[in-house]
Amino acid sequence: MSNTKAYAAFNQADHLKPHSINRREPGACDVHIDIEYCGVCHSDIHIAHDDWGMTVYPVVPGHEIIGRVKSVGDKVSKFKAGDLVGVGCMVDSCRECGPCQNHLEQHCEQGMVMTYGSEDPHQPGNMTHGGYSTQIVVDQDFVLRVSEDLDTKSVAPLLCAGITTYSPLRQWNVKAGDKVGVIGLGGLGHMGVKLAAAMGAEVVMITTSPEKGEDAKRLGAASVLVSKDEAAMEAHAGSFDFLLNTIPVAHNLDAYIPLLKLGKTMSLLGATQIDCHSIGLAFGRKMIAASLIGGIKETQEMLDFCAEHNIVADVEMIDMQDINQAYQRVMDSDVKYRFVIDMQSLKTAQ
Amino acid sequence: MSNTKAYAAFNQADHLKPHSINRREPGACDVHIDIEYCGVCHSDIHIAHDDWGMTVYPVVPGHEIIGRVKSVGDKVSKFKAGDLVGVGCMVDSCRECGPCQNHLEQHCEQGMVMTYGSEDPHQPGNMTHGGYSTQIVVDQDFVLRVSEDLDTKSVAPLLCAGITTYSPLRQWNVKAGDKVGVIGLGGLGHMGVKLAAAMGAEVVMITTSPEKGEDAKRLGAASVLVSKDEAAMEAHAGSFDFLLNTIPVAHNLDAYIPLLKLGKTMSLLGATQIDCHSIGLAFGRKMIAASLIGGIKETQEMLDFCAEHNIVADVEMIDMQDINQAYQRVMDSDVKYRFVIDMQSLKTAQ
Repeated sequence: MSNTKAYAAFNQADHLKPHSINRREPGACDVHIDIEYCGVCHSDIHIAHDDWGMTVYPVVPGHEIIGRVKSVGDKVSKFKAGDLVGVGCMVDSCRECGPCQNHLEQHCEQGMVMTYGSEDPHQPGNMTHGGYSTQIVVDQDFVLRVSEDLDTKSVAPLLCAGITTYSPLRQWNVKAGDKVGVIGLGGLGHMGVKLAAAMGAEVVMITTSPEKGEDAKRLGAASVLVSKDEAAMEAHAGSFDFLLNTIPVAHNLDAYIPLLKLGKTMSLLGATQIDCHSIGLAFGRKMIAASLIGGIKETQEMLDFCAEHNIVADVEMIDMQDINQAYQRVMDSDVKYRFVIDMQSLKTAQ
Repeated sequence: MSNTKAYAAFNQADHLKPHSINRREPGACDVHIDIEYCGVCHSDIHIAHDDWGMTVYPVVPGHEIIGRVKSVGDKVSKFKAGDLVGVGCMVDSCRECGPCQNHLEQHCEQGMVMTYGSEDPHQPGNMTHGGYSTQIVVDQDFVLRVSEDLDTKSVAPLLCAGITTYSPLRQWNVKAGDKVGVIGLGGLGHMGVKLAAAMGAEVVMITTSPEKGEDAKRLGAASVLVSKDEAAMEAHAGSFDFLLNTIPVAHNLDAYIPLLKLGKTMSLLGATQIDCHSIGLAFGRKMIAASLIGGIKETQEMLDFCAEHNIVADVEMIDMQDINQAYQRVMDSDVKYRFVIDMQSLKTAQ
């Protein structure tokens, strides 16, 4: 049985192709969602290409999902048909371990059930499949409310890029007046600039390219620090309350650590190799942290914060059929700043 | 004028040799100390060999100093002649910046005045000289009280190795019942084991050598984890409240980070290059920190804690004339666990 059109990767080398998957019959606690938009995250590409050695093919990527509720199960109290909703990187967790009890389902001791690429607890023997598809069925506790007041298609990337930047800004208590550096201006970095600025921070875009800096100012950065400019880096030494590092490739941290004030933290968001000399951390007892999306409660808080501050992602719309060209452009860093798939293109496809 | 016998390094390549230096005339706030013992820290060797590219020759190393007060200046209220005292890695700081006001003189914004190798604010144009010498003059605010109840010669290493391990254990709030891993068993590691155990923690010695583990149990470790044993490392995954990493050479952290519980920290004490993959930190939002000795107030607190818990270093005594062989043995990791110089050997030398 298959009831849902989708696009899937079938092996490491090929392009994504049309596929057909079976969404489960909605249960009493489930929300059946008609998908309208799905963002394209770099993780989708890593999984499609099996860069992390964990892919089970075929896989339907996509974890920045926006849609409308088609129907809800008997025990669903949080949503009703017609509601605008979102689904992010997780669709379930054990709900009983310490992290789950503390709203950190992304750190579930049993492992979160990822939106795609996890074993599906509702369909034993099958893997979960993501948002490059026309519909999805998700337990109500992992469905997010989305404001009708924002530009809906541009909300999609908030479900991953938004929460991934929001969570460390909150964890490290970024507040009005803080000086926050965002390192790297891609899908994550552009959300980091918008969110930190909305929290009242003085945001400095730290980049290798002066021209990216100009775009960052449009997004809310107060100023630009070109990391290749040693004199400028020296001038900013010891002045940052927090650094959000979104560099997605292997890199050395020694040039950035001196920017931090005494006792302050750089949080890493890229999934990558890093290296540094410990002396840079010891002088000023600075810290390196890293962050992984955010819990469901915090994701809802982020969406509500974005609604209040009128924050969405900067997106470029594509049809589902354009996904392979989009993947290439993401790998070439040629997108400002997130591709979003209009799922109407898949629904109406022959 | 020169009034004090010492041993100094005169260049990068040669052995340390007898030297003669001029200690300042004690001022109103000064404590004049007759040095009895001085520990041999690996930093002494790095500076003698100019490994860090900052050495001004000749330099008299030594920053684990124990002695008796000979005399005090008119305004000295904290000490009197005959008192047993210690001097650690710092002899002054600006005293006015934020870190100094917050008892973090080691992070003074003007730079602490190191016991050796700093420009001497009291003798412009001269550098400070350390404890490989018969006497020293230090401002009372940078002199520590030492209990008469401990084995005096074995107290010396507390002034650097002791505070360097005590401070991160306190900063990261190690408490009774916590599971603490100490990685590496040298001068720092052996103090880390003793101090964490005295704080009530369950200390696990993490080492490449099972035989070192046995010695760690004698020092207070509850158990031993051989880091090359993958099954054992896996069995301890996610179980540590804190990791104190004393490895002094470049290394990768990926095997150690999974040992930490959710949200917990590894503090680096070695001055060395490190690398890791960010994913290990992101899954469980773990942190890497580093630490640099401790402030004067905390150093006194550490000495008082050691007196209360009867903690000293395990030392091997040498004469001043043996320093060059001792340096070679430190570089060969052939000491349990700290050399201490009996300064009587220098006082009576021809």
